[in-house]
Amino acid sequence: MMKIDKKQPVPLILPNPADPRLTQRVSGTDQTGAKVEINVPMERPLTLYLNAQEIVTMMTIGDYPEYLALGYLLNQNMLKYDDIVTEVEYDDDLQVVVVRTAHHTNFEQKLRKRTQTSGCAQGTAFGDLLEAVESVALPKAELRTSWLYQMTQTINTMPSLYLEAGAIHGCVLCKEGEPVCYTEDVGRHNAVDKIAGWMFRHGVTAGDKILYTTGRLTSEMVIKTVRMGIPILVSRSGFTAWGVELARQVGLTLVGRTRGKRFIALSGEERIVYDQNLAYVEEESARHRRKGEGRDDE
Amino acid sequence: MMKIDKKQPVPLILPNPADPRLTQRVSGTDQTGAKVEINVPMERPLTLYLNAQEIVTMMTIGDYPEYLALGYLLNQNMLKYDDIVTEVEYDDDLQVVVVRTAHHTNFEQKLRKRTQTSGCAQGTAFGDLLEAVESVALPKAELRTSWLYQMTQTINTMPSLYLEAGAIHGCVLCKEGEPVCYTEDVGRHNAVDKIAGWMFRHGVTAGDKILYTTGRLTSEMVIKTVRMGIPILVSRSGFTAWGVELARQVGLTLVGRTRGKRFIALSGEERIVYDQNLAYVEEESARHRRKGEGRDDE
Repeated sequence: MMKIDKKQPVPLILPNPADPRLTQRVSGTDQTGAKVEINVPMERPLTLYLNAQEIVTMMTIGDYPEYLALGYLLNQNMLKYDDIVTEVEYDDDLQVVVVRTAHHTNFEQKLRKRTQTSGCAQGTAFGDLLEAVESVALPKAELRTSWLYQMTQTINTMPSLYLEAGAIHGCVLCKEGEPVCYTEDVGRHNAVDKIAGWMFRHGVTAGDKILYTTGRLTSEMVIKTVRMGIPILVSRSGFTAWGVELARQVGLTLVGRTRGKRFIALSGEERIVYDQNLAYVEEESARHRRKGEGRDDE
Repeated sequence: MMKIDKKQPVPLILPNPADPRLTQRVSGTDQTGAKVEINVPMERPLTLYLNAQEIVTMMTIGDYPEYLALGYLLNQNMLKYDDIVTEVEYDDDLQVVVVRTAHHTNFEQKLRKRTQTSGCAQGTAFGDLLEAVESVALPKAELRTSWLYQMTQTINTMPSLYLEAGAIHGCVLCKEGEPVCYTEDVGRHNAVDKIAGWMFRHGVTAGDKILYTTGRLTSEMVIKTVRMGIPILVSRSGFTAWGVELARQVGLTLVGRTRGKRFIALSGEERIVYDQNLAYVEEESARHRRKGEGRDDE
């Protein structure tokens, strides 16, 4: 059981590819018909409750269920940042996680009223999410290009589940050029939700952080970053049109296609400080490129 | 409005990167501070109703909303293959699509009973989905390696939205080595759902088909393929442990990490016929590799 006490020291979170619970060895056949063995990431169902209300069943590698639960609820706007969370209970056998709050949440009330007509918590929450995002004011901040290159270099070369078993997403919260919380998951948005939960749990400030994702810069990813109060979002992948539009609307700095020397910013360029001499940045090497290849999506 | 009449000829579906509704030109800044312009894929909300019941709001590029609606409902087991669909109505202004059936569906009944306690259609459907999959018997079929290499070569070199604007998923239904329905979408599972809708709409047989995806071979992807009755699933991406386990349970042929000469099969290897002389297959060229790079996720 996770007690919510923001006075404990903040743990650094980095990938743990050696954890045997996170991957599985399976045998198969290659193109020549020969037997081969490879590692693949685990994927387990985790059912989330907010008090007595069942919310969703997620697919996850299963590390940090408490952070994932908190982050999911926060990023879906089902939990407000000023709701008082009394505990987060995780049951490993049942694969259930329960987030308990001091008072019934606004979302539970709303759900009771709306399910008769709409039926789906996901659908109900979406309009509210957009509203919540539109009223946000993101703080002033800097993205120095020297930090950007330091970050991506560190992330690409650090041991990770992706390098171990492929088919996984990564999300990294950085302060200046340094990773402070690096999460991975098979579930599409679980990696970023775990970061949101970790920040909430430990009272980590958002205004001085940079969020990096291996995934695409879609509207969902932009909404989550803004919900978390982070002013800068970076990816090695591309953009969608609505992701760009939303980012511009709320003044989020959006940097994509970050590979080796290259990147493209499509929103919030005023935060970028071009302090890096590009002559000293290498083009992406084949080894670093591995983190892009194969993580073709899901 | 789409009338359901399975006697019409079956249209070949291929990517249409020239369609101006599917991409948008946006301007930004590159690593040198210079102004650049790039194409990004569109991403629009589409709200789906089953008769009077609101089901979900999806993010989609917006082509083939009718196929997407049908395929989503079928793949979620909210619509059975023997339900009689009377029409599919799409409203471009409201971004709403309504699937109408001759009788109330089993799912609607279930939803009315369950929403009081569970609240979310997504959650409700998941257990049912697993059940539905466990009882499936997939047909005998062949995957000749000559088809496999022909397929991947064709898919990698065919003009597509991905090559035009990046940040998009692709899913291709093939007969032997030939694509017959090639869909793309920003939404994670929309590409495969559109194929399911297209097959249902036109009464296309599944037993002699091969499904190719640019995405990872997760439990969700396996469940959808099995739901559709397709015996063979191929990807250029990797596997998750539960995806492999489910595939083995139902006897789905699962082939991943398909690049150039290489591939790995982790389930249903008895369908593979090694008829291709590997000396005549090229390693993946840098140009073909483009379809893997950058489509880093979701």
